[in-house]
Amino acid sequence: MARYTSMEFLKYLVFEVHPIEILFNYDRYKHLDNEQAWMIIESAKLLADQEMFPYFKEMDQTPATYDGKGGVRTHPQIKRIIQLAAEQNWIGGAAKFEHGGMQLPEMIFNSAHHIFQSANNSTQGYLGLSTGSADLITSFGNAEQIATYVPPIYEGRWQGTMALTEPQAGSSLSDIVTSAAETNQGYYKIKGQKIFISGGQHDGVDNFVHLTLARIEGAPVGVKGISLFIIPKYTPEVDGSMRYNDVYCAGDFQKMGQRVYATTHLSFGDNDDCRGFLVGEPNKGLTYMFQMMNGARISVGQCAASVAMAAYQASLQYCMERPQGRTAGEKDPSKPPTLIINHADVQRMLQTQKAIAEGSLSLAMECNKLYDLVHASEGEEKDTHLLLLEILTPIVKTYPSEQGSRAASLAIQTLGGYGFTTDFPVQQLYRDLKIMSLYEGTTGIQSLDLLGRKVTINNGKALQLLLAAINETIDKAKLNVELKASADRLSKELNDMKKVLLHLNQYAIKGEIERYLSDATVFMEMASYLVIAWQWLKMANVAKEKIEAEDFKTNSKSFYEGKIHTMHFYFKYELPHAAACAETLINTSTLTNLQNLEMFF
Amino acid sequence: MARYTSMEFLKYLVFEVHPIEILFNYDRYKHLDNEQAWMIIESAKLLADQEMFPYFKEMDQTPATYDGKGGVRTHPQIKRIIQLAAEQNWIGGAAKFEHGGMQLPEMIFNSAHHIFQSANNSTQGYLGLSTGSADLITSFGNAEQIATYVPPIYEGRWQGTMALTEPQAGSSLSDIVTSAAETNQGYYKIKGQKIFISGGQHDGVDNFVHLTLARIEGAPVGVKGISLFIIPKYTPEVDGSMRYNDVYCAGDFQKMGQRVYATTHLSFGDNDDCRGFLVGEPNKGLTYMFQMMNGARISVGQCAASVAMAAYQASLQYCMERPQGRTAGEKDPSKPPTLIINHADVQRMLQTQKAIAEGSLSLAMECNKLYDLVHASEGEEKDTHLLLLEILTPIVKTYPSEQGSRAASLAIQTLGGYGFTTDFPVQQLYRDLKIMSLYEGTTGIQSLDLLGRKVTINNGKALQLLLAAINETIDKAKLNVELKASADRLSKELNDMKKVLLHLNQYAIKGEIERYLSDATVFMEMASYLVIAWQWLKMANVAKEKIEAEDFKTNSKSFYEGKIHTMHFYFKYELPHAAACAETLINTSTLTNLQNLEMFF
Repeated sequence: MARYTSMEFLKYLVFEVHPIEILFNYDRYKHLDNEQAWMIIESAKLLADQEMFPYFKEMDQTPATYDGKGGVRTHPQIKRIIQLAAEQNWIGGAAKFEHGGMQLPEMIFNSAHHIFQSANNSTQGYLGLSTGSADLITSFGNAEQIATYVPPIYEGRWQGTMALTEPQAGSSLSDIVTSAAETNQGYYKIKGQKIFISGGQHDGVDNFVHLTLARIEGAPVGVKGISLFIIPKYTPEVDGSMRYNDVYCAGDFQKMGQRVYATTHLSFGDNDDCRGFLVGEPNKGLTYMFQMMNGARISVGQCAASVAMAAYQASLQYCMERPQGRTAGEKDPSKPPTLIINHADVQRMLQTQKAIAEGSLSLAMECNKLYDLVHASEGEEKDTHLLLLEILTPIVKTYPSEQGSRAASLAIQTLGGYGFTTDFPVQQLYRDLKIMSLYEGTTGIQSLDLLGRKVTINNGKALQLLLAAINETIDKAKLNVELKASADRLSKELNDMKKVLLHLNQYAIKGEIERYLSDATVFMEMASYLVIAWQWLKMANVAKEKIEAEDFKTNSKSFYEGKIHTMHFYFKYELPHAAACAETLINTSTLTNLQNLEMFF
Repeated sequence: MARYTSMEFLKYLVFEVHPIEILFNYDRYKHLDNEQAWMIIESAKLLADQEMFPYFKEMDQTPATYDGKGGVRTHPQIKRIIQLAAEQNWIGGAAKFEHGGMQLPEMIFNSAHHIFQSANNSTQGYLGLSTGSADLITSFGNAEQIATYVPPIYEGRWQGTMALTEPQAGSSLSDIVTSAAETNQGYYKIKGQKIFISGGQHDGVDNFVHLTLARIEGAPVGVKGISLFIIPKYTPEVDGSMRYNDVYCAGDFQKMGQRVYATTHLSFGDNDDCRGFLVGEPNKGLTYMFQMMNGARISVGQCAASVAMAAYQASLQYCMERPQGRTAGEKDPSKPPTLIINHADVQRMLQTQKAIAEGSLSLAMECNKLYDLVHASEGEEKDTHLLLLEILTPIVKTYPSEQGSRAASLAIQTLGGYGFTTDFPVQQLYRDLKIMSLYEGTTGIQSLDLLGRKVTINNGKALQLLLAAINETIDKAKLNVELKASADRLSKELNDMKKVLLHLNQYAIKGEIERYLSDATVFMEMASYLVIAWQWLKMANVAKEKIEAEDFKTNSKSFYEGKIHTMHFYFKYELPHAAACAETLINTSTLTNLQNLEMFF
């Protein structure tokens, strides 16, 4: 079978770069050890090999389709995958024992989901949505809500979804108008339209649990008046029957990628009979939702990394098998063609993909680990992990999405004309990947979050923690002669970032918030280059240790040398662009506030 | 109707930035004037509005399909467009009067084709291929060949194609094996397989004229043994009948974009009855083919620019109509939402698209003009224009293809989730655009051509001419206080490029050709940033003149101010990345010549 991810690399991340074993010291995860962890992850590979990867292309060619009367037809394998994944605990496995889970750390659970994402990213979407929805109910719902909705989701019988976006509001959640009218019967009557609801209707499950943001009548304007509701498609009645809850699917968006993943338009309360069940307190919906949203952002970033990884694997395989042309120094046309991997430019394209895909996946694993530490620890320790996770979340969402598309484009490029044809998966991966920069807050939104909130949060504490974490890696690398120059370089880049922030702060201090934030996306780009450089330096540190200790039990010497090599590649070819971003950010001209719109013509 | 290009911008390019009127001083074009030129271009807009643009989405959804027995079915509108375009001289209009053309300069002809490319890029492909094929026959064929094949192509009854690529050889033309056995009956017997033959078979015409590269038996190995043949699908016989020439279409590649554009697999001589007619002399086929190839490279680059332009127009329209959210400085959620064009990040995305699309199109027009000057002039003047055109050709092919994809991605981004749906054209444009970096020599091939051939050609004469042309623009800009800083900046960048070349030359001098060329693509990226900066400075010079002269007959003051604005934007946001490329190029570590392939895992 074609490779779609690297189990060697995954093992390296989980056990060596971000050693999972420290988690097993905490009560929450003390029932596990390294061996079990890997066994569990490997079982996911089997599922993906057998049930997901073989359907990747076929699913692209049978998109989810609306039947014109409220239903969406998907590929039949979706239903089977949801059932098998549920049986094997890949929906509820990270939940606590008391909620029917296996209390797996995200490092294990999301390693499995990485495999699914690389094998068949749309399919993983259906699973991940259910997981996030059930988690949200578990965190903020009452005992009855948990008992009613969580088990059928974990059993793969019901699909959980998140219903935020409305046609008129888009990314601006403060403008949502879906309304909730209180009744005296323990529910609210819901009315409104939601669009882009992934998995909102399909034939792979029996019921849907829509976690929906709506505005209780009379609530304050803006985000402070938003509440969270559970709105099932069918409500379970006392007698065991299921009552249709007036949730109508009005359509399914057709898309350029993730075509088998239903993207629905839902209409609540067309017949004035849609019941919503309030989660937690009124007007706190957005705060609750952000738990799921933050998880989803990490997951989307990881998914982008995983799709880029799948593209890299397909590209690498092709380049190692395809003979074509001669190297630039070889002029004799009677010599046999060389494998294209021997062309310098092909190696450049492969290394770029590897640097992006593996760097991104390492960052995702860093975030998974922080997530686990947040959930396993308490007090100040927990706060520290949480702050670091918070500042990394917009970055792990964005870098893989943006640079992943570039990596997938290079994968196409290595295949030449074949890459553009449906005979090869790279073009599908390229199409699928483009959605990642839009899901769960666009790149623009993530960048505002990073510069506007996360950099300044707790008086800059999150940023300090991030810098400290990076400096720890730098200090270690400085001790090694082969890594020292890279460590120094990253140090210099961090200083340049501080200068950029000092420059931008002038505007913030003067209250020129719009100007402070105007190039947030460029700042995101710069910060991302540094954070990924950190991940590569971290990977190189570990590889160097293994080589020096001649410890090749887990992976080969070549594997470790390859990591150091790609670190150097990243520092030579990618990192220099951070300085270009810095130059833009320090330039004082304001060019993105045109009032005279005719100047766009 | 939705805008898919800007006629204002086209007028600005043709009459003000690259004034066409100097062409009318030459014999070849003296029958034309400005007024006629614009009238002719406008007639193309009407054709595109009525017959091309309305079918853009529909054609994507009805891809060319193979019928299993040698035929490829396309959308019926393709046939109609070919006929109408032929009637209106959009296949043969640039040919000399003596060959049935209107002797139009490319500046006019390709302005029309830009409109077609923006409106419906696959459709333009069918037309452009025929034009290039007929030109090639006219240039190198004998009188009988010209008389036989050119008129039916210009009349839209026959389709011209270029048949170069073979399954085993890909980009490496020296390895083609299609064979030609001489007979004593005025033709060669052809045998071989060609893939990725655009327009190689479809139901929009009656016959096909495949300009095919093949190897005469006993010819030298490599590119010096390649000959060019005319291989019609049906040969016209003396009695007026058409004889099937054993050219079988064995399949049609399905692709992620340009889906209505047939991409065929052709099999020549399965029944040992395929006749090829030698063009010109034996073994000079590749030289001849490069005439068509060079034209095709400019055309592909222009097409990428045009598709990026269409995406920009769709994006701009959406951003000017869509209200959403509030600007970063506005915290009051009870205020009505603003149009998204008022968000700084949206303006950044629009300006980036504009900088790429318009900068690319200006470069394409620069090349069209040089092409015309080459064909209108003689002697030393001709040589000068030709050298400049030669060094620009790989750049005009590459920058729009690579950066155009980024621009189209930003177009999707400005539409949010809608951009990913088939309800809007931007995703189709993004898919279509990706092929441009593969057609007619990939980005890697173009980059080898730039650094390996064009930079060194005639002892660096082409490069000197380019630098002189850029410096002329810089010198002019330096005289203006608002443009001076940008002029100085570009000057500095040119110096940095010279330093990079001096550095690389060390390897060339030592005969380390492989090392000299190893980062050719990074050099291409750097050079492209500078060349597009040149185009923007040139556009700004003209705009400044118009504003200072208060000459707003052709375009409004806002239009000209917008050009200066986007020039500044390009210099602030895009140009700094040239320095990042320079840093990579000057870094002496070699990281793209791994022998140990396990290091890629």
